[in-house]
Amino acid sequence: MTILFENGGGQMDERVKEAFYKIYEGEAKAALRLKLFANKADQEGLPQIAQLFRVIASSEEVHGERALRMLREIKDTESNLKESFGSETHVAGVAYDHFIRLATEAGDTNAANIFSHSKDVEDVHANLYKKAMGHLMEERETSYYVCKVCGYVSDGVWPDVCPVCSAPKDQFVEFR
Amino acid sequence: MTILFENGGGQMDERVKEAFYKIYEGEAKAALRLKLFANKADQEGLPQIAQLFRVIASSEEVHGERALRMLREIKDTESNLKESFGSETHVAGVAYDHFIRLATEAGDTNAANIFSHSKDVEDVHANLYKKAMGHLMEERETSYYVCKVCGYVSDGVWPDVCPVCSAPKDQFVEFR
Repeated sequence: MTILFENGGGQMDERVKEAFYKIYEGEAKAALRLKLFANKADQEGLPQIAQLFRVIASSEEVHGERALRMLREIKDTESNLKESFGSETHVAGVAYDHFIRLATEAGDTNAANIFSHSKDVEDVHANLYKKAMGHLMEERETSYYVCKVCGYVSDGVWPDVCPVCSAPKDQFVEFR
Repeated sequence: MTILFENGGGQMDERVKEAFYKIYEGEAKAALRLKLFANKADQEGLPQIAQLFRVIASSEEVHGERALRMLREIKDTESNLKESFGSETHVAGVAYDHFIRLATEAGDTNAANIFSHSKDVEDVHANLYKKAMGHLMEERETSYYVCKVCGYVSDGVWPDVCPVCSAPKDQFVEFR
């Protein structure tokens, strides 16, 4: 059976819809990988190759964005916050929990630790979204600090030590 | 059967390896989605919410990066260029070709056009990688222009009109 759904006045075939989801996935993965390849090229003293990787990463993001737009996945901000909150809660409570169990069963303490860090960080994200949902109209200015090791996000305070992975202060990137 | 593979002196259980791949995929998708949510929040006049989405996108990228590092997926630049070239060639010649056929069969001309644009752009990427592979040691400075509509990358020249999707000049973002 071919399921059709509304798409900008037209209707989209289920296989075409699946193709757009695959494209979103493939292009998002490519964009992230290429950004890391860019950092690696910088480390090797090849800034022009690094630039090329970054430019192509940006191009892949355009493809991913186009797919998400066709799928009507970018809604209004209130909906986007709610969706992101739901997604973090699921990732922390279901996905990472499962991965921690797997790694523990396999006796891989290092992987279990990494998964545990990520679970804690996703919980922090969920709280940040919750806060934002409660104050959607009361905008306030703040700086955020993201730990380069585990991704922990600190709201307003530059931590001396990462509370999740114990990385030192200089491992935080400031966003303001 | 549990397949083991070398990982930084230790060995990684196949299920743990799969978990890292899933994490890379999920976090890359989240990072891209959140960046688009950030742009949407900016359009709605909510710059603080936009900032929150960007900060969390960056945190998700840290998780994705950690997974890719554990999987030893970030190699030296010469290998990364070769891999990227191979990947683009596959995406243009196999994946997008398949999607174009699907969309054409489904009578979705709009989707077929979008897939066709992306295929052409991936071919351009492959050529850029090829050029870079041939001149790995001869670095040269250049500006790139990326079309915000279809992702086309122009090397050194700001086009009047996008040769792939016909978007006008002001739809290009400069990278230098």
